[in-house]
Amino acid sequence: MSFKPVSNIKFFNVTSPAPFVVHVEINRPEKLNAFYEPMWVELKRIFEQLSTDPEVRCILISGAGDRAFTAGLDVQEAAKSGSPLSADGGDGKSDPSRQATNIRRHVFELQDVISAVARCEKPTIALLHGYTYGLGIDLSSACDIRFAESSTNFSVKEVDIGIAADVGTLSRLPKVVGGITSWVKEVTLSARPFSAEEALRHGFVSRVVKGKANLINEGLDFAKYLASKSPVAVQGTKNILDAAWGRTVEDNLNYTAVWNAAMVQSSDVTRAILSGLQKRTPTFEKL
Amino acid sequence: MSFKPVSNIKFFNVTSPAPFVVHVEINRPEKLNAFYEPMWVELKRIFEQLSTDPEVRCILISGAGDRAFTAGLDVQEAAKSGSPLSADGGDGKSDPSRQATNIRRHVFELQDVISAVARCEKPTIALLHGYTYGLGIDLSSACDIRFAESSTNFSVKEVDIGIAADVGTLSRLPKVVGGITSWVKEVTLSARPFSAEEALRHGFVSRVVKGKANLINEGLDFAKYLASKSPVAVQGTKNILDAAWGRTVEDNLNYTAVWNAAMVQSSDVTRAILSGLQKRTPTFEKL
Amino acid sequence: MSFKPVSNIKFFNVTSPAPFVVHVEINRPEKLNAFYEPMWVELKRIFEQLSTDPEVRCILISGAGDRAFTAGLDVQEAAKSGSPLSADGGDGKSDPSRQATNIRRHVFELQDVISAVARCEKPTIALLHGYTYGLGIDLSSACDIRFAESSTNFSVKEVDIGIAADVGTLSRLPKVVGGITSWVKEVTLSARPFSAEEALRHGFVSRVVKGKANLINEGLDFAKYLASKSPVAVQGTKNILDAAWGRTVEDNLNYTAVWNAAMVQSSDVTRAILSGLQKRTPTFEKL
Amino acid sequence: MSFKPVSNIKFFNVTSPAPFVVHVEINRPEKLNAFYEPMWVELKRIFEQLSTDPEVRCILISGAGDRAFTAGLDVQEAAKSGSPLSADGGDGKSDPSRQATNIRRHVFELQDVISAVARCEKPTIALLHGYTYGLGIDLSSACDIRFAESSTNFSVKEVDIGIAADVGTLSRLPKVVGGITSWVKEVTLSARPFSAEEALRHGFVSRVVKGKANLINEGLDFAKYLASKSPVAVQGTKNILDAAWGRTVEDNLNYTAVWNAAMVQSSDVTRAILSGLQKRTPTFEKL
Amino acid sequence: MSFKPVSNIKFFNVTSPAPFVVHVEINRPEKLNAFYEPMWVELKRIFEQLSTDPEVRCILISGAGDRAFTAGLDVQEAAKSGSPLSADGGDGKSDPSRQATNIRRHVFELQDVISAVARCEKPTIALLHGYTYGLGIDLSSACDIRFAESSTNFSVKEVDIGIAADVGTLSRLPKVVGGITSWVKEVTLSARPFSAEEALRHGFVSRVVKGKANLINEGLDFAKYLASKSPVAVQGTKNILDAAWGRTVEDNLNYTAVWNAAMVQSSDVTRAILSGLQKRTPTFEKL
Amino acid sequence: MSFKPVSNIKFFNVTSPAPFVVHVEINRPEKLNAFYEPMWVELKRIFEQLSTDPEVRCILISGAGDRAFTAGLDVQEAAKSGSPLSADGGDGKSDPSRQATNIRRHVFELQDVISAVARCEKPTIALLHGYTYGLGIDLSSACDIRFAESSTNFSVKEVDIGIAADVGTLSRLPKVVGGITSWVKEVTLSARPFSAEEALRHGFVSRVVKGKANLINEGLDFAKYLASKSPVAVQGTKNILDAAWGRTVEDNLNYTAVWNAAMVQSSDVTRAILSGLQKRTPTFEKL
Repeated sequence: MSFKPVSNIKFFNVTSPAPFVVHVEINRPEKLNAFYEPMWVELKRIFEQLSTDPEVRCILISGAGDRAFTAGLDVQEAAKSGSPLSADGGDGKSDPSRQATNIRRHVFELQDVISAVARCEKPTIALLHGYTYGLGIDLSSACDIRFAESSTNFSVKEVDIGIAADVGTLSRLPKVVGGITSWVKEVTLSARPFSAEEALRHGFVSRVVKGKANLINEGLDFAKYLASKSPVAVQGTKNILDAAWGRTVEDNLNYTAVWNAAMVQSSDVTRAILSGLQKRTPTFEKL
Repeated sequence: MSFKPVSNIKFFNVTSPAPFVVHVEINRPEKLNAFYEPMWVELKRIFEQLSTDPEVRCILISGAGDRAFTAGLDVQEAAKSGSPLSADGGDGKSDPSRQATNIRRHVFELQDVISAVARCEKPTIALLHGYTYGLGIDLSSACDIRFAESSTNFSVKEVDIGIAADVGTLSRLPKVVGGITSWVKEVTLSARPFSAEEALRHGFVSRVVKGKANLINEGLDFAKYLASKSPVAVQGTKNILDAAWGRTVEDNLNYTAVWNAAMVQSSDVTRAILSGLQKRTPTFEKL
Repeated sequence: MSFKPVSNIKFFNVTSPAPFVVHVEINRPEKLNAFYEPMWVELKRIFEQLSTDPEVRCILISGAGDRAFTAGLDVQEAAKSGSPLSADGGDGKSDPSRQATNIRRHVFELQDVISAVARCEKPTIALLHGYTYGLGIDLSSACDIRFAESSTNFSVKEVDIGIAADVGTLSRLPKVVGGITSWVKEVTLSARPFSAEEALRHGFVSRVVKGKANLINEGLDFAKYLASKSPVAVQGTKNILDAAWGRTVEDNLNYTAVWNAAMVQSSDVTRAILSGLQKRTPTFEKL
Repeated sequence: MSFKPVSNIKFFNVTSPAPFVVHVEINRPEKLNAFYEPMWVELKRIFEQLSTDPEVRCILISGAGDRAFTAGLDVQEAAKSGSPLSADGGDGKSDPSRQATNIRRHVFELQDVISAVARCEKPTIALLHGYTYGLGIDLSSACDIRFAESSTNFSVKEVDIGIAADVGTLSRLPKVVGGITSWVKEVTLSARPFSAEEALRHGFVSRVVKGKANLINEGLDFAKYLASKSPVAVQGTKNILDAAWGRTVEDNLNYTAVWNAAMVQSSDVTRAILSGLQKRTPTFEKL
Repeated sequence: MSFKPVSNIKFFNVTSPAPFVVHVEINRPEKLNAFYEPMWVELKRIFEQLSTDPEVRCILISGAGDRAFTAGLDVQEAAKSGSPLSADGGDGKSDPSRQATNIRRHVFELQDVISAVARCEKPTIALLHGYTYGLGIDLSSACDIRFAESSTNFSVKEVDIGIAADVGTLSRLPKVVGGITSWVKEVTLSARPFSAEEALRHGFVSRVVKGKANLINEGLDFAKYLASKSPVAVQGTKNILDAAWGRTVEDNLNYTAVWNAAMVQSSDVTRAILSGLQKRTPTFEKL
Repeated sequence: MSFKPVSNIKFFNVTSPAPFVVHVEINRPEKLNAFYEPMWVELKRIFEQLSTDPEVRCILISGAGDRAFTAGLDVQEAAKSGSPLSADGGDGKSDPSRQATNIRRHVFELQDVISAVARCEKPTIALLHGYTYGLGIDLSSACDIRFAESSTNFSVKEVDIGIAADVGTLSRLPKVVGGITSWVKEVTLSARPFSAEEALRHGFVSRVVKGKANLINEGLDFAKYLASKSPVAVQGTKNILDAAWGRTVEDNLNYTAVWNAAMVQSSDVTRAILSGLQKRTPTFEKL
């Protein structure tokens, strides 16, 4: 059996390269995988569906083609009249308070797409390569794990279009690179590009791999490794760890105990322990 | 004079290798210093007592023998019938809600042991070596400082027994390595082993030392250095710094001012300043 | 046109080495730029004024002379009778609760100076060199970006005068180096000196430059680069990023959307996007 | 012009009794307006659509018929095999951890329905009458204002079906009645019924009206009054006030300033002030 | 079968007036039930044991004799030399920072006693009468429900001994009376006495009963009513509701779903629903 | 001796009607005590100075004349060209993002005035009478205690000038009336006037007194009562209680212990206890 296909998807390839592993590929290579309206809608649907599909235990995300994970927002589309970033703010006649309301609603919609990735119950691995600009940072910051190809070209690009990044980067970078360091301020305030090596040194990615094919393989190997583990344990770990951010240790300890009160009753525990004692590979029920 | 011995301790060696320095050694080397019920009870008593003993200014923790700091939970003991991780969840007859209640209470008890280490008023230095698995991460994450022997074998092992780590690792790792980085997710979601060098690179330990004897010496030297400083200043720094996590800068600044309102009235201030101006080594009253 | 000079300043040189860039130099080199009462007052006034001056887009801070960014608190001044750190706590006759009240008020005043730097709407870059002790850490932790000269001598010095650092270091270090790591505890609990290379490795500074003149140039180049970007975008990024600390991702996402509801209506957006499409250098209205 | 009808709604009457006012009536009177699956879906769609319809400035909610606002969950439907509250928990074969996962996902879905009411940008007024049990409390606690008919029969009924209320009551009651008072604990721990007079005394409702027709009229009058005010001001007040809960005064003040930075630029301000000075009734642009 | 007696208790009568109901009576009537050191120790042991005794579903607390629930701290004992409130602060020789450390540790110990009452898993009902001063407010604020005899004489008395209440009143009053109202400030800042009627009006108690015997009966009746309900539902409601304070609605909703994921699997649900449908009185397994 | 006069005050009468009691009277009765720019500046200076004057233990605030405590913002002044509420938003030429920046800075300045009242270390009592509109609610919500004359006419008036109240009301009302009740939403969303009796019933004021002279007397009597108590205890109670809002009980308990570690060392404790035992009236050192 395999994962349930997501219907009516045009801009993403969603495949299963191994049992329990799904690969989501952003597929608009002729535009450097840049995002515009209809892609948002698909992205959200994909992750909402994969989140609870019992045949899915790990999700890889990459970009089609060699040139870009994603160049970010498709600025030409965004600058068209009627859009929130256009010269008339989507509505040249309104007063600034009404325009602000339109913009706020629009930003919430986009944030909710990226948050659908962050909320996904299954672990997600972003495989970054080529141009990884703007939305590429927002999107990969919402993933659990980031590996990069060695020539990846990163930029928190939003400052270069005159705005503070508002789809998730500024809220999640402090969490995924650890703090609001001098380096975080450097790259977010200035939009200056940075390299894979820099991303590794500052903890934004945990591995750098030479060549896109090798990158995909490295991601796939790790995904298969994760998929072999107890899904109850893996998904619980993800949930509890994410809940730690912006909250106290004491609150998180209590939350952890309440979470595990149900989850330790899993058949995975017996299976994992027995397999460990007997040096066997365990199999686990679906989740 | 010396620190007050902790009574009725079987599984730990508690000694004072230097004035104001105490060394707590986990002492069950034949089982790789793995933990089971009676050891928890002792560990908590030890740290609660050392916390307020005025003869103690710094505490070192290590494992007896060369093979392990601790291999973690003694899974064979934990899997015995009647325990929360056994096949019958400690009580095969109860419905899941009542079993959940048993488990929750049990997790709180174990968390409270590790939290007794975290709450200890005196700085604590974990000296990690050999197998440092599962509980070894929980325990050392509750310490202030971590040094490792160069061949230490680390693993956030809980996923391999089918559970999310619930005794402290997931709540404290984001604090002690800085954020919920790609690397943190890698090692917690997968339980894959990692090396001392990796631990150093990602900030989990601040020093790597070759050879266990050298590790103990490095720890002891730093402990003696800490013990020579104003205990009012050192213990206040620990308290205020830990209070910063999960709270805003503004709240922590206010807390700091309230704390120091009492503590700056210390005789340590005059003694430290005068010694500094006169290039002498200060001595400080007990705390 | 240029920035509005800050009146009646004795202990700081405030100059504009490039359009929209201001350089604040601590100017008491004969005392290693150590701080005492009148300097606090000036420092606060300077940053409060620069914060809203539309001619200012980036601020550099360094110390006059080659020997020190700042050696920290001028302990000899602080130890004089009548001051909170003196032997009589500023008032030998009061009971400890009243003395505590005096100290608390005094600490709030000093914290407020450093917080004026942190609250400054414009990005700030600390250029660290020579002795960077005590207050030097408090002050630079309140800046956005830190570069260091390669021979800088750092110390969280407060423990050596018998107190826990209370002007900001303990509240902001977890934010700027990412977490309360083993290394953070090492250097804050012990006051041991650390090098520029160590500061770089642990993320306290993002660049190390050989020679003070080169350091100033590196800072100036980056400041000019920042000053060329949309001030609406840059200052919004700073505000939103700082608001992320100690709060949840969800709260920060909402805050970001509300912030951008007004700020995306900026003429900077059109100017930046058009310039980008047309490969021109944009200019932006003042802010 | 009038509000945009919500399509395909069976269980609710959605009408506009006055300009800018919408009335949502729960319409399953033969079952005391008790909720089951298909009604949740409709309720969420209704409020998501009304939230941003510029023709809507205030929403009334009541129940069809005289007997009940809503008797709460339709327990007979909920107890059917396959549902989370059935004897087999929706899946008799799964282990408790997988069953817990099913339940958690289901609860999130239901919470999200009620949260759609709470998130609605427009003010909502619950008009309570007859049986107002279980979900009736969850739903009305998510509204801004509550009026009750004098013979309303209230109960936080969940304890009587063996569960802690999990769709919102326990999270929002402390906010809407002010604290976790002795009375709140009385009625939530015991599920004992309480009267309209008691609800008024403890602040759960702000008005008690005799007779359902009068209740509807009182609600309508207040809705019309609200609808005559600046929608920018009213909706901003709702947003800022709700953001105050569980956060500090300092954080809320900052949030308010950021919100109003855009919203004070509204044409409503000039219109409202001029009308006030000229003793005229202002009209406002849509929002 | 009945609850397990708490061993070695001298200052409290602990009895079971009805199945699943325990009555804890403070028993030092000759001193108006004023507290001193050995009573704290007993109080904590009692509540820690009752918290998890499956034979206990509700706990009543009252004072022996007619004159006082408790007059609070036994000031004569507290003022004895060597105690933290004595003229020598427990240690006339120490400097203020060391004395502060002693006091802080002592306050934590006392707070922990009252917090043991607040943490008790079972609902607690304080029956207040006669003098209910100082500690009487701290203690009853940590209970879930408060009833008062009509002539009860209340006072947040601590200001009259020169201190801010530090054992829990100031932290829990905002939660149990709803906010930091004008009335809360009146009675806490001034220590002025207030009546049962005033306590009722401001929500501190939810019922006022004439005569101590009637008060006890009213409490017992409500305790029996609570004890007849699903213990899984009642205790879950208590836990979730208390977790709402100082946290956001969103966080509490998530916590609730996680809690109920285990607890809705209870046999109580089926029993409660079936009994409801069949108009029978359910019985529930122990918890 | 008496309190130190505040220099250069035109719009307020600041007098001392009794030892340690100061009366601040808003003095622009010809304009119903409405506020405009120069009054803000004075108000802040007054409260910052009184906050630490050791001759001040309690502060009363009222309005000159019989007609108004304050009618709120002087809308005619605010609507003048160049002000943030004027038709040109203070700067008709700027784009909305720059105008937003102006407005935000201006709101922060006004908020800071009201926050100076809230931060005042000494207890404050607002005596409300006549028109108490808009700013009258902001200002009195920042006080500790509120008494009202029986014919006071209240309104959270901001909605009537097209804005959400942004100087403090929305942030502090939930704290001072307990929650975000149906009544709070009624009066803040609609700006409908409410009476003293309503204010009393919903806890906004704690006393209603007939006649302004009687109101002043009632306030003065209570102020004198407060001034007779230990200032260490009273001011500590205020500080700790305010710190409880938006934070957890556990955090507040810890903060309380740290606060009292210094403050319990006060001579007030001995004086208060001895006076109590000896039935004498204590006197206390200045604070």
